[in-house]
Amino acid sequence: MFSGAQVSLYPMTDDFVGVIVDAIGALEPYRPDFRIETDDISTLLVGPPDRLFPAMRDLFTSAAGRGVHCVLAASVSRGCPGEPDDPICTPMAGIGSGEPLVARIELALAAVAATPTVGQRVTAQFSLYPLGDNHMDEIYGCIDFLKRSGVFDRSKHFCTKLRGDAGAVFATLSEAFLRFGAPDGHVTLDLKVSANSPTGA
Amino acid sequence: MFSGAQVSLYPMTDDFVGVIVDAIGALEPYRPDFRIETDDISTLLVGPPDRLFPAMRDLFTSAAGRGVHCVLAASVSRGCPGEPDDPICTPMAGIGSGEPLVARIELALAAVAATPTVGQRVTAQFSLYPLGDNHMDEIYGCIDFLKRSGVFDRSKHFCTKLRGDAGAVFATLSEAFLRFGAPDGHVTLDLKVSANSPTGA
Repeated sequence: MFSGAQVSLYPMTDDFVGVIVDAIGALEPYRPDFRIETDDISTLLVGPPDRLFPAMRDLFTSAAGRGVHCVLAASVSRGCPGEPDDPICTPMAGIGSGEPLVARIELALAAVAATPTVGQRVTAQFSLYPLGDNHMDEIYGCIDFLKRSGVFDRSKHFCTKLRGDAGAVFATLSEAFLRFGAPDGHVTLDLKVSANSPTGA
Repeated sequence: MFSGAQVSLYPMTDDFVGVIVDAIGALEPYRPDFRIETDDISTLLVGPPDRLFPAMRDLFTSAAGRGVHCVLAASVSRGCPGEPDDPICTPMAGIGSGEPLVARIELALAAVAATPTVGQRVTAQFSLYPLGDNHMDEIYGCIDFLKRSGVFDRSKHFCTKLRGDAGAVFATLSEAFLRFGAPDGHVTLDLKVSANSPTGA
């Protein structure tokens, strides 16, 4: 198994470099568990699939806490057959372990409900791509979960929009990524999260 | 067939609203062929699949021409079985019409070679997701094309990075989207394009 994300942070301010450099400090607690590499386009996080969204949440809320409009965009992946296995990507114990779709939806809802509030309002838009056979069944199951997650905003063409506290929103994204698609399958997730938008609700 | 994109523009400047509003004017020539809707997260373009990347190129180069660091992020899709057919999404005549992979690679290379220069340097990073069976064959074929496109920068985990003139880069992205994956299959593409980055080459 190989899992990780290419993550970018876009602060809409003249001081974008300062905001990014400060926010990256929020990844410090994750460094022992992740391989982290940065270039001019994105930061690579390679590590345990169930720690990816907490790391992105802390990075993003650190930047958004400055009050400027900012967006996090990420391409998240697990199980890509073109990537080498990496021991840093520990298996997802007890997650995505082959239960029927209806059971996975209930587990995902319970996980979101148990997530503490962070205190930062965010809006997220994302698409889940379970590659391989029967991908639409998994997508429809995931959409059922999202509609009951408490942070569902609306369905849009090609994606779903969430809105709410960063704790619940990132927990919902993490559950979508971990519990839908085959446990050892190739699953990707295309994500944007926004805060402090002048046109947002 | 249904095809389109959710497109966002992120200018890293205090005047991000002004840059976005001005750049959207570059979409005017495309309005007769597209349905266009905007909310606080993205602009939806629904229309012919072979006109999507020219529209995004003109939108992005308009913003990048201001000289500020800006990024375009897009989730592009064709053939999603969960979307309704729409007559505005005209079929791709002569594109993706079932030739063997090796022939499609040559056609894609010829299309990129015939593309005029725009005069704006950009860096792009993207992932192609042909959903359904045999998706890795199509991805490896696409990577072969990308390596010979003239704008290949490097392979990264989960994605490929391109660098060069906006004309060739967006043409390469369009060919990747149109010619790989089954002609009537569900194909998505997760894209970021950057210009004027202080850390870029």
